[in-house]
Amino acid sequence: MDGPPPPRVPTLADVAARAGVSTATVSRCLNAPDRVQKDTRDRILEAVKHLGYSPNFGARALAAKRTDTIGAIIPTMDNSIFARGLQAFQTALVDHGMTLLLASSSYRRDLEETQIRTLVARGADGLLLIGHDRDPALYDFLARHTVPVLVSWVFDPTQPRPSVGFDNRQAMAEMTHRVLAQGHRRLATISGYTSDNDRTRDRVAGVRDAMAEVPDCAPLNVVETRYGIETGARAFAQILAKTPETTAVICGNDLLALGAMRQARTMGLRVPQDISITGFDDMEIAVIADPPLTTVRVPHGDMGRQAASMLTEMVRSGTTPDTVALPCEIMERGSLGPAPRS
Amino acid sequence: MDGPPPPRVPTLADVAARAGVSTATVSRCLNAPDRVQKDTRDRILEAVKHLGYSPNFGARALAAKRTDTIGAIIPTMDNSIFARGLQAFQTALVDHGMTLLLASSSYRRDLEETQIRTLVARGADGLLLIGHDRDPALYDFLARHTVPVLVSWVFDPTQPRPSVGFDNRQAMAEMTHRVLAQGHRRLATISGYTSDNDRTRDRVAGVRDAMAEVPDCAPLNVVETRYGIETGARAFAQILAKTPETTAVICGNDLLALGAMRQARTMGLRVPQDISITGFDDMEIAVIADPPLTTVRVPHGDMGRQAASMLTEMVRSGTTPDTVALPCEIMERGSLGPAPRS
Repeated sequence: MDGPPPPRVPTLADVAARAGVSTATVSRCLNAPDRVQKDTRDRILEAVKHLGYSPNFGARALAAKRTDTIGAIIPTMDNSIFARGLQAFQTALVDHGMTLLLASSSYRRDLEETQIRTLVARGADGLLLIGHDRDPALYDFLARHTVPVLVSWVFDPTQPRPSVGFDNRQAMAEMTHRVLAQGHRRLATISGYTSDNDRTRDRVAGVRDAMAEVPDCAPLNVVETRYGIETGARAFAQILAKTPETTAVICGNDLLALGAMRQARTMGLRVPQDISITGFDDMEIAVIADPPLTTVRVPHGDMGRQAASMLTEMVRSGTTPDTVALPCEIMERGSLGPAPRS
Repeated sequence: MDGPPPPRVPTLADVAARAGVSTATVSRCLNAPDRVQKDTRDRILEAVKHLGYSPNFGARALAAKRTDTIGAIIPTMDNSIFARGLQAFQTALVDHGMTLLLASSSYRRDLEETQIRTLVARGADGLLLIGHDRDPALYDFLARHTVPVLVSWVFDPTQPRPSVGFDNRQAMAEMTHRVLAQGHRRLATISGYTSDNDRTRDRVAGVRDAMAEVPDCAPLNVVETRYGIETGARAFAQILAKTPETTAVICGNDLLALGAMRQARTMGLRVPQDISITGFDDMEIAVIADPPLTTVRVPHGDMGRQAASMLTEMVRSGTTPDTVALPCEIMERGSLGPAPRS
């Protein structure tokens, strides 16, 4: 840097003057960098940086018809459930030249609605949302503002809008088949809250689907709670109090399962000799549990990367992609074993 | 809802007509809801929702001189290091009537810079940033755009801008004192990368501060790596290969410590009988480790809540608050024990 930057807010013309190009070239460079030669681009970007130039949002959006910003709203930041997929999404968006602005709704519909409106008012070109469950008026609102929406973390081909995700119901049915194959017939489930949440509903439905194929199962004991380790531990204690004959607890995510495992240890139950416990997600911590956790590996990385490509394409070409379902994988580890002989 | 909403993008006048009030009242209601009577406000909000009205960002910002949006940029979403503090920050912001838009820089300075410019261009009223380390030109840029900045996760009273955080160096020195008090003299540290990261540098400095007070310590073996369980496991193996006489490994965060514990088990070392391991953060998973992890409890919740109050006040009153340091607490658990006799 040669000398202090000017004290007033710099303009496009200041950038053009410093870079020795026309304002049209600066504008083209900022909106479609690939259309400007590299040495010119480098000079312009140096000038932008040196002057502290920030493109006027309104004018730029008008000129470019897009603002290169994608919004995403996730239900929670409080643990790493959505973190890995989002990180992959963001990394791929950066490669596509897009900036991600994220909001977290704390699983509250009213907050999510405010955040959707805020992101639209801020000129987000497209939105990534988790699951399909929300007020139809919100989808109407987004359609009227021509903001494309991609839904993720689910697969539901009956829904009218595109999504990239995985089949929560089928994955959980497959996990339950593995549990039943070990001779377990007295099952319980610790689920996240199912209201306004198609992912949790699908997972419980998957457990029931698999059980329906086996005639001698006891009724399923379902406890709903907030996702977390502490809540998983409490739910496990509640299950054992109500149905002490339970031999396998199928958990709606890995945090619940880790809490259940801790509580089992506290209660003097051996996993898997006395009781089997399974999770969902295959978080990094699943393998550090003792015994390591049997769980469903969710394709977080692929999902995030494909979501970035699909949403970029939707924003840039205005097309609507086909819904994509990615496969999950059952990771059988030490926390699932044969049912104890009663 | 009585009838379908109109097909065109609704205006302020549409909202006023439906609510039976003047456009000035609608405007006042959206910018300062407390100044409008509750029944009027309810009618206006019903109309806003029914019509799918989204306030024109530029006009509204101009009228209100603020947009009720706070931006925050964290270094990573990939695990829950920043999640708890951010969640508390967001919850408190909602109580203050602000919306949080978040970006994650993947510990990349160039990305953080783009994200700061994007958030400013989108009219963020204030920014929360992690740590002080960044190009001074960026702070100049924010000052020229009169966007207040609050720094968090650190305490450094020599810095010119306000912050709310904790003293990483003092906390780690305190942890190291506890380790030394158990007779350990051959220490190693697994640290996050220290370049561009004042938090990690301060933590390593804290280990050295405490060691400097004890004359018979062997030189500190420091390994830097990315925060994570896998990386922690690899760093632990590397330490034991280079300094097999190490009796305590002080880790820069809990993920590294959990990885180290897993690797110790793989290598047939008992924790803490053969080697002690400590963490930093007190994540929820610290207590499910076997043995439970001795670590530094960081005041995530308080920090997030205070950051929300301070930044709201900075945005609304234009004042600059004093820097705040919150206390950390050492959580002594099973992973720290007496040094083995050599």
